[in-house]
Amino acid sequence: MPVRLPPPNPADIFPVPGIQIGIAQAGVKRADKDDLTVFLLDSGTTTAGVFTKNRFKAAPVQICESILNASGHSQVRALVINTGNANAGTGESGLTNARLICSELALILKLNPEQILPFSTGVIMEPLPVEKIVKALPAAVQAASSDVWAKAAHSIMTTDTVAKAFSKRVNLDGVIVTVTGIAKGAGMIHPNMATMLGYLATDAQVSPELMKPLALELANTSFNRITVDGDTSTNDSFVVMATQKASHPVITSWESALGQELFKAMKAVSIQLAQAIVRDAEGATKFITLKILGGQTPEECKKVALAIAHSPLVKTAFFASDPNLGRILAAVGYAGIEDLDQSLIELYLDNVHVATKGSRHPHYKEEDGQRVMKQEEISVTVDLGRGKAEDMFWTCDLSHEYVSINADYRS
Amino acid sequence: MPVRLPPPNPADIFPVPGIQIGIAQAGVKRADKDDLTVFLLDSGTTTAGVFTKNRFKAAPVQICESILNASGHSQVRALVINTGNANAGTGESGLTNARLICSELALILKLNPEQILPFSTGVIMEPLPVEKIVKALPAAVQAASSDVWAKAAHSIMTTDTVAKAFSKRVNLDGVIVTVTGIAKGAGMIHPNMATMLGYLATDAQVSPELMKPLALELANTSFNRITVDGDTSTNDSFVVMATQKASHPVITSWESALGQELFKAMKAVSIQLAQAIVRDAEGATKFITLKILGGQTPEECKKVALAIAHSPLVKTAFFASDPNLGRILAAVGYAGIEDLDQSLIELYLDNVHVATKGSRHPHYKEEDGQRVMKQEEISVTVDLGRGKAEDMFWTCDLSHEYVSINADYRS
Repeated sequence: MPVRLPPPNPADIFPVPGIQIGIAQAGVKRADKDDLTVFLLDSGTTTAGVFTKNRFKAAPVQICESILNASGHSQVRALVINTGNANAGTGESGLTNARLICSELALILKLNPEQILPFSTGVIMEPLPVEKIVKALPAAVQAASSDVWAKAAHSIMTTDTVAKAFSKRVNLDGVIVTVTGIAKGAGMIHPNMATMLGYLATDAQVSPELMKPLALELANTSFNRITVDGDTSTNDSFVVMATQKASHPVITSWESALGQELFKAMKAVSIQLAQAIVRDAEGATKFITLKILGGQTPEECKKVALAIAHSPLVKTAFFASDPNLGRILAAVGYAGIEDLDQSLIELYLDNVHVATKGSRHPHYKEEDGQRVMKQEEISVTVDLGRGKAEDMFWTCDLSHEYVSINADYRS
Repeated sequence: MPVRLPPPNPADIFPVPGIQIGIAQAGVKRADKDDLTVFLLDSGTTTAGVFTKNRFKAAPVQICESILNASGHSQVRALVINTGNANAGTGESGLTNARLICSELALILKLNPEQILPFSTGVIMEPLPVEKIVKALPAAVQAASSDVWAKAAHSIMTTDTVAKAFSKRVNLDGVIVTVTGIAKGAGMIHPNMATMLGYLATDAQVSPELMKPLALELANTSFNRITVDGDTSTNDSFVVMATQKASHPVITSWESALGQELFKAMKAVSIQLAQAIVRDAEGATKFITLKILGGQTPEECKKVALAIAHSPLVKTAFFASDPNLGRILAAVGYAGIEDLDQSLIELYLDNVHVATKGSRHPHYKEEDGQRVMKQEEISVTVDLGRGKAEDMFWTCDLSHEYVSINADYRS
């Protein structure tokens, strides 16, 4: 698909001092696939996470949340991730199985089970083949190496067509600090391969109490700004880690110059990862940026963005390169703003002014709309004309291939 | 498509004393199609309407609402409906055009323009060819006849593949009363052919003040219980008319025996019309009934029903006859019930008990799920286990053909 990015060049994905990654083949679903990934974090690393808002939380998500709530952000020493099975909709035995994996890994690493965060992604509502995973843990630990981030980006994939890894270096007061992240996902939820997973690490020194707000803010500007099909997974997880290895002065506030510099780099990598998920979305042929301006609150702008992004009619029009733009106006109208005045709405496709005061712009020509719709990257701007708030989202079109992937996957 | 109904047999669609219908070819979009329909209502007819909640209301919807709000429910003497153009996203000139059609029809019928309700359905954001419509009005009026309901069901169609008309007779205190309705729609909003339109008439005698609650309650149990793609049209309209011609004692309360009898018949026809729209939905191959039980409020049951009905992943699984039922659990989880306890959820596919206490039922076999998923009519029951409220919805699957119809329509 043209909107997809090429696979990452391993040479561009920098290791993060203080983190080693081990990869193994557990055979959860297929015999010949890397499907087990272990992150080993040096002592002192601070960690925070953001997890799915779905009330049907997968077992590993429940465990991650309870560990991070109970032990704070300085205790985590390992992550363990399997693909091929989401361990969701699996009840008590799902929790037992996830805990068992943590205990077995703790034995190998001489840690407490509460120092290990588990993650699963794959089919929902099928029992986790826990023995296969446990059996492969020693191999994963033994393989641990600092320079395999690109390979790890590949080993956490499910229906993704391309690995997603990005890296940046930033100068903090003369000290070069690394920010590296990997993610997987090709729909907010997969066929039955559930989940968006994201892991972002830096060797910067960051006060532990800054980690949770950091994770929330990064998620909010990246992974929470993308939508493919509106389906929120049972397993969505985003973890931020800071190994504290770099020798710059410790960052104690995001308002400080160093804090801002680091945050900017981490945000850039998070956005690259999030956009890469949309670009690799199931069946996507177009990458669409939605900008909603002129709202009274960011929340109402978000409602409008999501109404447009989730409208099957808008999404199929993008797929067809058809400037059938009344569909966008209709979506704005049902987004849920009770006192919306349609006569104030302005609509732009890139810089083509399509609608003014809620109806077709007198100078709008269908061929101008058509030209933009044929592009692989399109921006849609809606000005609600009722305030100064704004919001933005990234999304994609809805193609025949989306239906094929999701309808034919298991049959 | 197998879930579609056959076209109505004109002999089964009974005329409603007090109503004549005229049909003509205005050539709004194509030269050879019946695209203009006029309802002529005898003096004394009471009328009420329910209209789209989309804030981007089409011009005719704005006019209908203002007429019904201003003149009450006993003044309307005609309806005029064009297909081929929705007169939506057309600003001030759209309002002027719709008013012009009403004025011209009023001249012919010797009425005030405020006694006429206009309706349009078709492409959004294109100027209404008002001269063509005005020119065809005399022919439509001249053609008026009482026995053309089935033909009218056909003349209001846009991308519908089959006309939708149903009729019932009911005995009110020894007097036979007729209830006849027609509707159009093949998506909550069409490709660019927007709109669900529904017209339900009876010759029963109903107090004027009962008409508005009647229309709301009928819409609530029928047209507001269907969803195809979640897109709410700019033009959705449902009109209920009572010509007062029948000689039974006037109905002054829906609680009375006669009131209940009539309401039952009108509800039955409304539900038939609403279900016929889902059965004719763009690309639909399955007719799905969603029953949500055990909620604390009907509103939260509705949220769950809509999350399931709008999930592209659930809809493509139905299309594929794939019992990939974790997708339904995931949709329940993100429906927006904050304190949902996943361990109380029960899921049934017809009478197959798929999930219990939030995870796969120990006796559930994939082949049982598969057998039900292969049917053309499927019921999904979710018990939330937290109260006694319930709700239900009718919906359909998401097929390749949906994408084709909506992506290829204008290209």
